[in-house]
Amino acid sequence: MSANKLRGESMKIKRSERLVDMTDYLLNRPHTLIPLTFFAKRYDSAKSSISEDLTIVKKTFQERGIGLVETVPGASGGAKYIPYILKEAADEFMSEVIEILNNSQRLLPGGYVYMSDILGDPEKLRFLGRIIVTQYLNQRVDAVLTVATRGIPIAQAASSYLNVPLVIARHDSNITEGSTVSVNYVSGSSKKIKRMTISKRSLAENSNVLIVDDFIHGGGTINGLTSLIEEFNCNLVGSTFFAEGAYSNSQEFGNYTSLVKMENEPDGDMRITKGNYDEKIFGSAK
Amino acid sequence: MSANKLRGESMKIKRSERLVDMTDYLLNRPHTLIPLTFFAKRYDSAKSSISEDLTIVKKTFQERGIGLVETVPGASGGAKYIPYILKEAADEFMSEVIEILNNSQRLLPGGYVYMSDILGDPEKLRFLGRIIVTQYLNQRVDAVLTVATRGIPIAQAASSYLNVPLVIARHDSNITEGSTVSVNYVSGSSKKIKRMTISKRSLAENSNVLIVDDFIHGGGTINGLTSLIEEFNCNLVGSTFFAEGAYSNSQEFGNYTSLVKMENEPDGDMRITKGNYDEKIFGSAK
Repeated sequence: MSANKLRGESMKIKRSERLVDMTDYLLNRPHTLIPLTFFAKRYDSAKSSISEDLTIVKKTFQERGIGLVETVPGASGGAKYIPYILKEAADEFMSEVIEILNNSQRLLPGGYVYMSDILGDPEKLRFLGRIIVTQYLNQRVDAVLTVATRGIPIAQAASSYLNVPLVIARHDSNITEGSTVSVNYVSGSSKKIKRMTISKRSLAENSNVLIVDDFIHGGGTINGLTSLIEEFNCNLVGSTFFAEGAYSNSQEFGNYTSLVKMENEPDGDMRITKGNYDEKIFGSAK
Repeated sequence: MSANKLRGESMKIKRSERLVDMTDYLLNRPHTLIPLTFFAKRYDSAKSSISEDLTIVKKTFQERGIGLVETVPGASGGAKYIPYILKEAADEFMSEVIEILNNSQRLLPGGYVYMSDILGDPEKLRFLGRIIVTQYLNQRVDAVLTVATRGIPIAQAASSYLNVPLVIARHDSNITEGSTVSVNYVSGSSKKIKRMTISKRSLAENSNVLIVDDFIHGGGTINGLTSLIEEFNCNLVGSTFFAEGAYSNSQEFGNYTSLVKMENEPDGDMRITKGNYDEKIFGSAK
């Protein structure tokens, strides 16, 4: 074996290992600018080599629909991973979810559909999180807000890909988190007055807040969460719900995104179809 | 530029792109055997090349403490990513968390410490999840069980790295998820009788269940969750808590793992120190 070949191989392995570690490093830190100098030091490599590595990572992330790697040129430059999902991947995944949900054995008394397993499945949550954040690629989001209990996992999935804090409001007052802020709101379905509380420390003033929850039915919850956002002088960036109920009405409850839609059939069954995500998230790509 | 060089470069880029995509693919599917044939087809490459790629990924994951890539040789072989964290990385992270928690401004009336921000921070949750699952590397876990509300994010982080369903028990009976199973238990701190409920569909019989929650205080919650596991004829693999309260006692509540420990000081302050994770998770490495 020639010295040349040996040298070539050892260089190749070095780049290979950089690429593997760099991919892991970026994937674990979405929306965070990692300086070129950081990678150069981490791998004891020239910044020019790191730049080439990042070009490969960027190209592969784009070709495989993993996300955008935003590269900032110059001495103080670096790379930032911005997760998204492509429309075809989202559609394929959502079709599969809709088929699962339309299984008649999921129909529960009271017109509910069992969906906790889907909202507790890590692989599905990763897809759902990526679908949700794709809509807010170019917007600043500082926190994801949800209300206990069932909305927490999907909200956490979105907060993970946005890499911003998850803030949980609660219906009970059993909060041992110091001073709290509560709002009253009228439940859209039962027309009862309800109360929603969050810890004062959990949300900073002037934050840009994204609401994520499992279900929008009568619109009461969204009104409650919106009131909380106003109480904190925060800005509502948008609201995304896994499922939209039969009585939802975008005119009445503002501009929201839903991944699936549940409609009562005349025979008492439920029919689950695509939500408005196609238009809301991928609308510009049409 | 010689034809040779050109050919060499184009081959190099191909492997590079495979490595980046393969890393992403494996990281998103922990504990899942990905067949060699799948990667060979995905990249239109020979299985021998894929084998070499996997050797590089495996070596890098190991060197960087990302996790184990278990490779299964042979025609029906493949690779499986098993996440873990190294003791040094865990200790460095936990020291940082303990320093944050010991800030006196976090002390709340009633002897509580504000920690919801830590349990809602996606980067910290990724570290916490990896620390928790490191203890159960060689055990079969089929589900992660927690109880609403504050324990959900950290339980979800663990379930994500184990790639198994997250199952949420609730204290309220406001469950619209079909038939439920409830147990009564005595709250360890207040000595009141409490009730905990989960949907019957959410947990399969004979599952191996890992309990993950934010806080163990009087041991009541762990007793309730253990009773639920028995009701379902499931096996308890272990229990991990973010924080262990002053009154916890491993003798009384069985074998659990805690990441931090909270102790009341004579002056009314709280002192947060390392939990027993060092011994429980990394004990064998001592």
